[in-house]
Amino acid sequence: MIRVIAFDADDTLWHNEHYFRDAEASFRQMLTAYHDEAWIQERLYASEMRNLGHFGYGVKSFVLSMIETAIELTEGRVSGPEIQAIIELGKNMLGHPVEMLPHVVETLAALQDRYRLMLITKGDLLDQEAKLARSGLDRYFSAVEVVSQKDEAIYRAILARHAIDPAEFLMIGNSVKSDVLPAVSLGARAVHVPYITTWIHEHVEDVDTTHFTTLEHLGLLPEWLANLESPTKED
Amino acid sequence: MIRVIAFDADDTLWHNEHYFRDAEASFRQMLTAYHDEAWIQERLYASEMRNLGHFGYGVKSFVLSMIETAIELTEGRVSGPEIQAIIELGKNMLGHPVEMLPHVVETLAALQDRYRLMLITKGDLLDQEAKLARSGLDRYFSAVEVVSQKDEAIYRAILARHAIDPAEFLMIGNSVKSDVLPAVSLGARAVHVPYITTWIHEHVEDVDTTHFTTLEHLGLLPEWLANLESPTKED
Repeated sequence: MIRVIAFDADDTLWHNEHYFRDAEASFRQMLTAYHDEAWIQERLYASEMRNLGHFGYGVKSFVLSMIETAIELTEGRVSGPEIQAIIELGKNMLGHPVEMLPHVVETLAALQDRYRLMLITKGDLLDQEAKLARSGLDRYFSAVEVVSQKDEAIYRAILARHAIDPAEFLMIGNSVKSDVLPAVSLGARAVHVPYITTWIHEHVEDVDTTHFTTLEHLGLLPEWLANLESPTKED
Repeated sequence: MIRVIAFDADDTLWHNEHYFRDAEASFRQMLTAYHDEAWIQERLYASEMRNLGHFGYGVKSFVLSMIETAIELTEGRVSGPEIQAIIELGKNMLGHPVEMLPHVVETLAALQDRYRLMLITKGDLLDQEAKLARSGLDRYFSAVEVVSQKDEAIYRAILARHAIDPAEFLMIGNSVKSDVLPAVSLGARAVHVPYITTWIHEHVEDVDTTHFTTLEHLGLLPEWLANLESPTKED
């Protein structure tokens, strides 16, 4: 019996990834005189991966990686105003209005009386808090956890801290790697709700899909839960 | 009767501020051909304050503010390698070994059996978690809260979440503004343990010191607590 449902935030409740893709497009445009776009994109991703241990996830890390890539790819010739333009890309990302994904509000409203709802999100603390506040969704969640990484140990610690039995826990998110697999491997349930695009870093291959469910959108969740709790012959 | 003691981390348990001061000195040195040091420092602080709402506290924000200041003060002539050198200052700050302040370990060890100990720290999530892990102090704390801001509302939320009565709560830290005053104003106790230097942003003037205690170092805390709980005639 599920008692606690935790939601990922970025690209599960609201749009996020496409702001990164848009900023990358502007960034590639800026360096187009120096290199072809595929190479710029490849070097930027290499810089992000190299910097993950120093800077972690989030917009500020992404901006610093774009700046390093611009310096590298122009052999140091990138100008002050170009660097400033990269920083402005980041400020715009941090300040954009929160665009909710379809069915989010009615699904949370439908579930809040029957389940304890949590938010578990990875990234920059201030940015995640600010987006939650702008979204107005904070009233639905009894707990909000912003974490620097989403692996089995982190989920285990969160469940322990909130005294939640994994057998009563359901995790919902758009990332198989960060939301689904770690929850499944500690004995909880997980529902994958894919976003239109997935960051290459979150890709996993050859996933065993027998242990979790994929739903096309969040609006299908209440019915799936109802079926889970009182399965009928028709199913 | 105190049951829960929460500690600030940066400049309360381990050195932090002087890494910022050292990085600022290197930064001023870099721009010394363009402006005098006092002006560089003033513009950097203005940039940090302007960016606080976008980027929050922590090393990555500081690096982005240094980069903006360098672009501004050189009228865009700052070079790619100079920007890269600023980013390296940040990476060094994030990777430095944790230098514990005096008396920290023995004080935590002395208190851990009698009180529930917590860590409440402001700043970058990944950086704070990494410093706590490097310090080896995590075993003393039953809860760790990394917050984006330290005001009365945040403390109130933390106490509510952990079901702590303010009358049983003691906050310890080096910042009167962030650690002491918000705790006192919600009815808890606070002990101020000053660090050798205070960032200008954390300065407060005309503080009413009747509602909190200042101790010269953390080693004095167990005796102060013992006195608080069973005052003797000698005191």
